[in-house]
Amino acid sequence: MTSIDKHEQAQDKKRELHAAVRQYRKAHEREIVSELIEFLSIPNIETDRTEMRRNAEYIKSMLEKRGVIVRLFETETNPVVWGELDVPGATQTLTFYSHYDGVPVEPADWIDSHPYEPVMRSSKLDPATREPKPSPLPEHGARFDEDARIYARSASDDKGPIIGMLAALDALLASGVPLRNNLRFVFEGEEESGSEHFPEFVRKHRKMFASDAFFICDGPAYYTGAPTMWFGARGNIFAHVTVYGANVVLHAGHFTNFAPNPVERLSHLLSTMRDSDGTVKIPGFYDSVAPLGEIEANALNGVPRLEAELAGLYGFSGSLRNDQNYIESLQAPGFNVAGFQGGWAGDDARFVVPDVATASIMLMPVVGTTPDEMIDSLKAHITDQGYHVVTDDPSADERSQYSLIAKISTYWSAPASRTAMDLPVSVRIMDAVSGATEKDALFIPSIGSAIGIFSVLRDELGIPTLLVSTVNPDNFQHGPNENLRIGNLWTAIDTFAALMMMEKANSDVN
Amino acid sequence: MTSIDKHEQAQDKKRELHAAVRQYRKAHEREIVSELIEFLSIPNIETDRTEMRRNAEYIKSMLEKRGVIVRLFETETNPVVWGELDVPGATQTLTFYSHYDGVPVEPADWIDSHPYEPVMRSSKLDPATREPKPSPLPEHGARFDEDARIYARSASDDKGPIIGMLAALDALLASGVPLRNNLRFVFEGEEESGSEHFPEFVRKHRKMFASDAFFICDGPAYYTGAPTMWFGARGNIFAHVTVYGANVVLHAGHFTNFAPNPVERLSHLLSTMRDSDGTVKIPGFYDSVAPLGEIEANALNGVPRLEAELAGLYGFSGSLRNDQNYIESLQAPGFNVAGFQGGWAGDDARFVVPDVATASIMLMPVVGTTPDEMIDSLKAHITDQGYHVVTDDPSADERSQYSLIAKISTYWSAPASRTAMDLPVSVRIMDAVSGATEKDALFIPSIGSAIGIFSVLRDELGIPTLLVSTVNPDNFQHGPNENLRIGNLWTAIDTFAALMMMEKANSDVN
Repeated sequence: MTSIDKHEQAQDKKRELHAAVRQYRKAHEREIVSELIEFLSIPNIETDRTEMRRNAEYIKSMLEKRGVIVRLFETETNPVVWGELDVPGATQTLTFYSHYDGVPVEPADWIDSHPYEPVMRSSKLDPATREPKPSPLPEHGARFDEDARIYARSASDDKGPIIGMLAALDALLASGVPLRNNLRFVFEGEEESGSEHFPEFVRKHRKMFASDAFFICDGPAYYTGAPTMWFGARGNIFAHVTVYGANVVLHAGHFTNFAPNPVERLSHLLSTMRDSDGTVKIPGFYDSVAPLGEIEANALNGVPRLEAELAGLYGFSGSLRNDQNYIESLQAPGFNVAGFQGGWAGDDARFVVPDVATASIMLMPVVGTTPDEMIDSLKAHITDQGYHVVTDDPSADERSQYSLIAKISTYWSAPASRTAMDLPVSVRIMDAVSGATEKDALFIPSIGSAIGIFSVLRDELGIPTLLVSTVNPDNFQHGPNENLRIGNLWTAIDTFAALMMMEKANSDVN
Repeated sequence: MTSIDKHEQAQDKKRELHAAVRQYRKAHEREIVSELIEFLSIPNIETDRTEMRRNAEYIKSMLEKRGVIVRLFETETNPVVWGELDVPGATQTLTFYSHYDGVPVEPADWIDSHPYEPVMRSSKLDPATREPKPSPLPEHGARFDEDARIYARSASDDKGPIIGMLAALDALLASGVPLRNNLRFVFEGEEESGSEHFPEFVRKHRKMFASDAFFICDGPAYYTGAPTMWFGARGNIFAHVTVYGANVVLHAGHFTNFAPNPVERLSHLLSTMRDSDGTVKIPGFYDSVAPLGEIEANALNGVPRLEAELAGLYGFSGSLRNDQNYIESLQAPGFNVAGFQGGWAGDDARFVVPDVATASIMLMPVVGTTPDEMIDSLKAHITDQGYHVVTDDPSADERSQYSLIAKISTYWSAPASRTAMDLPVSVRIMDAVSGATEKDALFIPSIGSAIGIFSVLRDELGIPTLLVSTVNPDNFQHGPNENLRIGNLWTAIDTFAALMMMEKANSDVN
């Protein structure tokens, strides 16, 4: 056979596999959704240790039913569920991650259904009319409407993807095609509270975590609804900047025009940080950005343009920068003022000159810039504006010595990290999922938000890591009426099955 | 007699009167303070109608003891106490105002003494050491230390001045010098909640209010502690400005760099309103200011300079403007951002792009500019910055049509007003109090804060009106540990007695 023949044969095998997975799913839709509903019925607030253990045990039993060897690792909070399925002669090991905790619920906000009593609706709920009402599941063997949705906490974030993995495995086991990769499953129970202990868990078990690829199965698909593979993530930094006026709140009648106003000072300081065209004016802010490779640049060009739709959906006219489209804006270093608080405004307004004002600035490094470099740039810029920078509230001496004083306290939880798209394993991943789903998968260099364990896995453990996002973008994760669109659950199954079966010739080098 | 002789004779008479008042007070200090303590023991929260009526009845009985004809006028809230003391052959009528309601108390904050159980301390309380402890009053006939203070709600604001008026009247009646002016007393019971009904009461009873001069006896003396006569007051306006980003709070990871940030927009907008030298950049802001006359300018020059002391006391270095001293800054149109609220900052910071941000801007007109003109200037400036100005939250259509939208809602309670210092009555007032007190009275064109009824009296009823401030500036009005320094109570008695006896030749024209 020529290499072209070999390639065509491989593509044929891939298509057969995709078809077999779809075939299996179509015949078992009711069983899959029923298992999801059972899983969603177990409350999963991170601080409820008893219910969280029930969740972990439930996952364990579901994995064991599929022949996976499971171990629960005890942690300071909830168990980490670890599963292994080894295959004789496997040439690579692939790890699939999800989390089984959910954002705590405010029961009063769930007026349309109970967060832990999942219901199906035939389409997306209209909060105004509260229609459609819940409807019964189709019979066993019958098909679901792809636009139907399951409403419950964690339907999309992040129990749906767990069910997607289990159903993918069922489909592969039923297809008759032998598994060809060692599979690892890892499910965390404290993601929504910030994964405080998980990075350390990963470092401690670095041998166990060794993989040819690590798939973080979380987050919504891009707005087109196509499964989305993000090869990297920005970092994140909070810089809380406090500036000072008088040492007490002053009567506005007696001190307007005389006492310095910290709200006005901070407004002016913030206004020095961004130009009228939207670019950030902090010197050095863009200097160390690692340029994208050709394959990443091409991938970006392949992402459908949705600028007008997003602006329409979210009610604004004109984006922050004219020279970047939406997906490009997520690849650039981020600057965002998440909050400003000084004095009392609106209905709470008081007749005062405020004493202090605080803004919380978010900085998002991309690959090439470290969080510390970015923090240093911000501090240098504030110093350049004439401020004396401190880390504690100023003393009376400092107040008398310096007219402009800024307290800066910073916190960062993740540096930026990115898996190169031209690694052999990256190319294999993209090939494996191509054609697996109705809407072909999107490949994007970086997601805009920070993923705490991304850099631990990729940079510390050296594992090619991707974020695989399959759930519908309008899933209301973290809020009431969280939901999962059935069609997106099917997409997850197709995507995960394709990844589990990705090929690696013995001669391939990562 | 020559006119010089006449003048000297009048000055002699004045000095005799001042001495007689002081003589009487020195012999009756204990009685005066005891009456104050009894008055302060009646709780005076504006919403407690029963206790408020007890206060009104108490004032009535105190006035009647001095021969004043008293009437309680019922209002929507608490009675207005009106007193009249007519003198045969009087050539002028003088009205003295105070209010008998006090700011509501948080009992938990009054840890050193009970707000309605007055105590005397030998000097100012040190909150750190909680010293000096309360001490007994001196015996009848014995003298008080001038630095001793009475601690209780409304000691300074504004029951102390009422006792000052009563003691002044006692001293005059005891002096043997016949009263020469018709006196009016008016005491309001809803000042601290904003005098909602009092301006209308004044307008309704405009004939009754007709006076040659109206003295609003309220507020702290200037920082030197000398009794202070303010001939005018600035107005006040609140302009709440809200700017918009997306129609929902967005995830910062997914929208930083793309969605407009209303906090940054509002910061930038505010930064267009003031120059680096502190002057306000809103076009027209200073245009209509009525220039001060020569007598007002000279009066300003006579006010002791306390810039360094104020900056030291309130912990800042450098005032807002280099070209104005403190007292000048209060005569200029005021601009002050009283509050800014957008997103979540500091400990509450969230990983979001905020949807909306609001700043509450205070504008303070001075004589020459109306509140409406000032509001129009602000709106025009915001429009000039590219904003579409609305009065309600924007519709989806407006959001899609305009990139920059600002909702502006304004409220004003008082225009600026000022009694000219060169009116004959003004000259007589200044002459009457000169030499009456140990620290000679200060005359200042305007106070920085708004006085709700000032313009009603002066501009609508045409009554020369002054604010007469006698209590110690460190009286903690509105807070716990409100107090009145005994020496300032003596100053009030001397000042009010001198005003009550101010002369008017029959030939004088106001």
